Amino acid sequence: MKIKVVVTLKNGVLDPQGKAIQQTLNGMGYSNIQGVRQGKYFDLEIAENDEAKAKVAAEEMCKKLLANLVIEDFKIL
Amino acid sequence: MKIKVVVTLKNGVLDPQGKAIQQTLNGMGYSNIQGVRQGKYFDLEIAENDEAKAKVAAEEMCKKLLANLVIEDFKIL
Repeated sequence: MKIKVVVTLKNGVLDPQGKAIQQTLNGMGYSNIQGVRQGKYFDLEIAENDEAKAKVAAEEMCKKLLANLVIEDFKIL
Repeated sequence: MKIKVVVTLKNGVLDPQGKAIQQTLNGMGYSNIQGVRQGKYFDLEIAENDEAKAKVAAEEMCKKLLANLVIEDFKIL
């Protein structure tokens, strides 16, 4: 089954890439954009039919590889 | 309000980064991982209280800047 994971920077961690996107959008005329934060998204195809088990495995993989927990949070969708 | 956007590679577009992650996970013992696709995630903070209008604006920004529609799809969450 497919498990979707989002990894985002923690609040307070600087995100220059997001800032650059925000400034570009503002420059394009979207003046109502007050902030952009960029994160990562993963589609994991896991050979496991039990959704609960697949999510537990995905969480473990996030902690070990996909997210840097010092500066990032992750969420299993 | 906050609008979340996910940008993913279209099916059929090669994703060497996702492949590398898959091989690493397999090498770490997660042999049940059959595929990984990596995408991008954006948190947009829009000064707009009407959710429908904010989503329309986000869609426009995706088409113009955030996604490369030749090889990527986007989804407003």
